Amino acid sequence: MTSNVVSITENSKKAQNAIETLQALVADDMAAVNQTILDRMQSQVALIPQLAGHLIASGGKRLRPLLTLASARMLGYEGKRHVDIAAIVEFIHTATLLHDDVVDESDMRRGKETANNVWGNKPSVLVGDFLFSRSFELMVEDGSLKVLKILSSASSIIAEGEVLQLAVIGDLSVDEDTYLQVIEAKTAALFSAACEVAGVIAEAGHEKEAALRAYGANLGIAFQLIDDALDYSAKQATMGKAVGDDFREGKITLPVLLASRRGSDEEMTFWKRCMEEHDQKEEDLTQALALITKHQTIEATVNRARHYGDKAKDALAIFPANEARKALEDIVDFCIERAY
Amino acid sequence: MTSNVVSITENSKKAQNAIETLQALVADDMAAVNQTILDRMQSQVALIPQLAGHLIASGGKRLRPLLTLASARMLGYEGKRHVDIAAIVEFIHTATLLHDDVVDESDMRRGKETANNVWGNKPSVLVGDFLFSRSFELMVEDGSLKVLKILSSASSIIAEGEVLQLAVIGDLSVDEDTYLQVIEAKTAALFSAACEVAGVIAEAGHEKEAALRAYGANLGIAFQLIDDALDYSAKQATMGKAVGDDFREGKITLPVLLASRRGSDEEMTFWKRCMEEHDQKEEDLTQALALITKHQTIEATVNRARHYGDKAKDALAIFPANEARKALEDIVDFCIERAY
Repeated sequence: MTSNVVSITENSKKAQNAIETLQALVADDMAAVNQTILDRMQSQVALIPQLAGHLIASGGKRLRPLLTLASARMLGYEGKRHVDIAAIVEFIHTATLLHDDVVDESDMRRGKETANNVWGNKPSVLVGDFLFSRSFELMVEDGSLKVLKILSSASSIIAEGEVLQLAVIGDLSVDEDTYLQVIEAKTAALFSAACEVAGVIAEAGHEKEAALRAYGANLGIAFQLIDDALDYSAKQATMGKAVGDDFREGKITLPVLLASRRGSDEEMTFWKRCMEEHDQKEEDLTQALALITKHQTIEATVNRARHYGDKAKDALAIFPANEARKALEDIVDFCIERAY
Repeated sequence: MTSNVVSITENSKKAQNAIETLQALVADDMAAVNQTILDRMQSQVALIPQLAGHLIASGGKRLRPLLTLASARMLGYEGKRHVDIAAIVEFIHTATLLHDDVVDESDMRRGKETANNVWGNKPSVLVGDFLFSRSFELMVEDGSLKVLKILSSASSIIAEGEVLQLAVIGDLSVDEDTYLQVIEAKTAALFSAACEVAGVIAEAGHEKEAALRAYGANLGIAFQLIDDALDYSAKQATMGKAVGDDFREGKITLPVLLASRRGSDEEMTFWKRCMEEHDQKEEDLTQALALITKHQTIEATVNRARHYGDKAKDALAIFPANEARKALEDIVDFCIERAY
């Protein structure tokens, strides 16, 4: 067992290096993206940059725009459009986060108070709308209908996924495929679009665009699976995030879905009370964590994530081996090893 | 005085005829728009068409898409694009209404329970996002970057206006120009865009596009001024809307802004308690209505609206006199005479 722990820690360290390597690889581009974000979230209405800046400056990893920049780099793209496109992707993501935090009634994100907690739900809804509109204004400035099509479609799919997630909240009869449909829509669609648009601006052609789309989609699924595992993991607490948010909201994610399927009738009664009837006592989270451990559903969730991670890496096989491709492959491990 | 009442009633009847004339003029086109709206709000996620349909089928006047259709008709446009463009305008409007009702915590709209009241805030936020994204998908299908630019810019401006409105809520020191800035952004921007895009698809040229933009913007300001007057008018109650919503929310609209300016120090103390400190008793609305009557600020608001209505009509002078132009001129009176 000791050797296993050591190996996980080593993997975890290697994975952590992957995000730093990726950030270093496109550091100049990313500085330009950050500048564009700051410039374009300005408004005469002071509350807009205040509220948007609170979230945007809160030290997120900028994973989605990093994917756009690294994909462009992998393709040898030498133009300037990737900077605006990456900023657009981050604007869409930020708008989504602002609305998510309202919908989830979240207090904390990235170790900081959420905007809805500081300013209330109302400005969070409206500033989200502003950032979303602004992202379309930036797309129009870029001028590519193909980019507009990919990103407007992704936005629609994200919203559909969020509504579906809401519709099945507390519903333990939901099957794994419906759960997958939710995470494909709410998370993987933007990862996928973030990579695909790099192919479009680099004029990489149909096959490469499809490969980038597949890489992003599979990476996004893996990423969300790990996020959902982390919500029940002690690791989460060290990242400034609360453990058990999904449990308290009655969000049926894979660790709970599988635990309820694998458990006894008595355990199902427990899950139904907590998730469907939303009748939770303080000690219930401890019990939920014990059942998740008993049925090893964190491990199962991580294994599912590895499957999608493998598909993501294999999708990159058609690209020439270069530093950026290596960084995109390694970021798959980063997304998965976050679980440890 | 009797003759004045008769004249107002006659004007009111004439104005009511104006909307019916406009609706009849473009009835076929509008039927196509309604079909497009129904088709394109569909989703596998059942809650989306349910919630969107509740608002969309709730018997709104469809004023904004009517403006697009009538503008296209006035220009002699013979293509098909105006149908999708009009549906897009209504989608943006509907998304805005869904978010507005969440932000305003409204219970009723168009004489029906609001979506947020029936389904809660969360799906209203997300379905609003869906409709908004869908509107951009439709624009991309239309394929005109110029249309995309006008409508994405309008969307940004609307969101900015809503945030500004929120930022100045309960602030009696706000001046008339800031109030105007709010209503130009939150209402007039979409009226203006709805008309301008008709000019774009009809390839009417710079001067006519600018005239349509000016017509829509001035009409939108007049429309919102009257809406704000109606909130303090007995007429409102006959339209299935509550009287005094703005008062209860602490929204400083022109009737209150002017009444507080024209009144005594003692009256200002009353307004400050109600609007700034948000300390309202049940009889306060009656007192507010009495002060608004005393200082004739409904009349003043309607007069301001007439000014913008005149500008809107004059903006149409460059177009050939035809049935559609006449209908667009007459709709200005409809928007204003709603006050009576």
